[in-house]
Amino acid sequence: MPHALHEFDLIERYFRPLAKGFPGALDLRDDAALVRPPPGMQCVITTDMLQEGVHFFGHEKASHIAQKTLRVNLSDLAGKGAVPHCYFLSLGFDETVDEAWIADFAAGLVEDQAQYGIALAGGDTTRCKGMLSLSITAIGLVEEGKMLTRCGAKAGDMLYISGTVGDAALGLALLKGEFAGMPEQLREMAIERYYLPQPRTQLAASLHGATGGMDISDGIFQDTGHMLSASGVGAEVLLDAIPLSEAMRWIKRNEPARWLALLGGGDDYEILRSAPSLDNRHLTRIGRIVKGSGLHVLDSMGKPVTAPEGYRHGLGRVVGP
Amino acid sequence: MPHALHEFDLIERYFRPLAKGFPGALDLRDDAALVRPPPGMQCVITTDMLQEGVHFFGHEKASHIAQKTLRVNLSDLAGKGAVPHCYFLSLGFDETVDEAWIADFAAGLVEDQAQYGIALAGGDTTRCKGMLSLSITAIGLVEEGKMLTRCGAKAGDMLYISGTVGDAALGLALLKGEFAGMPEQLREMAIERYYLPQPRTQLAASLHGATGGMDISDGIFQDTGHMLSASGVGAEVLLDAIPLSEAMRWIKRNEPARWLALLGGGDDYEILRSAPSLDNRHLTRIGRIVKGSGLHVLDSMGKPVTAPEGYRHGLGRVVGP
Repeated sequence: MPHALHEFDLIERYFRPLAKGFPGALDLRDDAALVRPPPGMQCVITTDMLQEGVHFFGHEKASHIAQKTLRVNLSDLAGKGAVPHCYFLSLGFDETVDEAWIADFAAGLVEDQAQYGIALAGGDTTRCKGMLSLSITAIGLVEEGKMLTRCGAKAGDMLYISGTVGDAALGLALLKGEFAGMPEQLREMAIERYYLPQPRTQLAASLHGATGGMDISDGIFQDTGHMLSASGVGAEVLLDAIPLSEAMRWIKRNEPARWLALLGGGDDYEILRSAPSLDNRHLTRIGRIVKGSGLHVLDSMGKPVTAPEGYRHGLGRVVGP
Repeated sequence: MPHALHEFDLIERYFRPLAKGFPGALDLRDDAALVRPPPGMQCVITTDMLQEGVHFFGHEKASHIAQKTLRVNLSDLAGKGAVPHCYFLSLGFDETVDEAWIADFAAGLVEDQAQYGIALAGGDTTRCKGMLSLSITAIGLVEEGKMLTRCGAKAGDMLYISGTVGDAALGLALLKGEFAGMPEQLREMAIERYYLPQPRTQLAASLHGATGGMDISDGIFQDTGHMLSASGVGAEVLLDAIPLSEAMRWIKRNEPARWLALLGGGDDYEILRSAPSLDNRHLTRIGRIVKGSGLHVLDSMGKPVTAPEGYRHGLGRVVGP
């Protein structure tokens, strides 16, 4: 960090503008923010920490690193059916970071704040030896008692998923040099999905009637399993019903032995819902909740498929060299 | 991290018990926590990130690292007059951390949760390359409109400080091998003050009638300056009125050239208050708010003293080798 750049200057130039939309941030001029949910609403609060060499390489654009960190938190809020309200940012960086990097980092947040309707409420910046370390605590709002939990799924409900599954895990594999034969356009889409999750904020706010919900950041099979065990139920999921991008369809055709692991690989940031019925063109019905326990993935012949474990949450993946 | 230890196991054994006292934590079994301030109350939210090699050495007891990270946040809440409610923990650690370390880390939090009346509401654990990285977002409660800000000080108010000032900066200097002649008992006290801040939670909750407030983690001179500029006022502070421990009195006698810098060195976590009048045996009146601007530190003859800059917030200090 050049000596000319101090935290106060950084806050003044790059972070204070991010707090303009949130009066409780007190313009980032105080030591804490004031948050009060409107009458009848509750705060839904989630935290995700992202480390260089674990959750991102470090050579990504600063704006993408910022956006990924914010978006994985927004995805948690979307999973719970909460509308984004404000967030707190902790940013640790070393002396290799210059003002241009910080400017790009903040520009990414400016863009996402506008897109997702959220503002910075507070935070901390600090030196960090030899790496980037980020943590965001995001606050969303839900009507009282309306937060979707993992434990609400009921036998007889259907299971729904947003978007397409497996693309981010594929994107990471591509960045590691795998699947060299894949057409460029498909590669780019998958890599983009890895770098920049698309939290289903707008979709989540429009869905009513769900009994349970979460995002599937740890992979569709593992996270569905979490919802089932929390709800004390089982589920049958039809493998062929899981929505695929063109890139994942390419893998299924050309690298069938690798396809299932990628499908459950995680980093998807799609939302999972259980509900008696949900009719929304952005959701795909992938199975149904049954009595009993466990996730039963069935192929097109109705035969059980062994689902991969997916991402071992938090302490597992290393993306860096 | 030994392979046998996964995040789910760590949460089960060490972190879930920390969330027992906070129903909104949903037993740490979901992706987010529910927080709703009681009627008439607001949430005061603060975030501090602590990095190995910057805010702590790394060789400290794990319980002390945990407690320091929590306490610097609690001190911010105390500065604002807020009562601790719940907190979110992000913990990044590398493969040198074993289960015994995590157990000690959690034991420190158990102790502090009981002492300060706060519970874990959520968090994230992750791998982190070659160092420890911690971030806590703490939530306190205040009556609506009663949060003490930096901008409330008014000409004619008195200025008050809790505890004694400069001990933590002295403790750090001692750890670096300075002041070898200081008696052991004084050394231990100062080093303890550096390792384990004592947030003035109980005191803060009992004070009424203050116009402005904050903690002085960045040093008494610098942070008082912040309050003055935010409030658009000045202050006269009597150097001899600033409360000193026996260790800092020893420095004043034996190392007078170093004393003033230590006094303003930061990491104090005492609370500063402006008020027409506050009568509390844990507070010391150190000066008064005046019209104009700037902090005027006066010696016993009434002559101006040049106050040291103190800790350049966040990006300054490196404690490690």
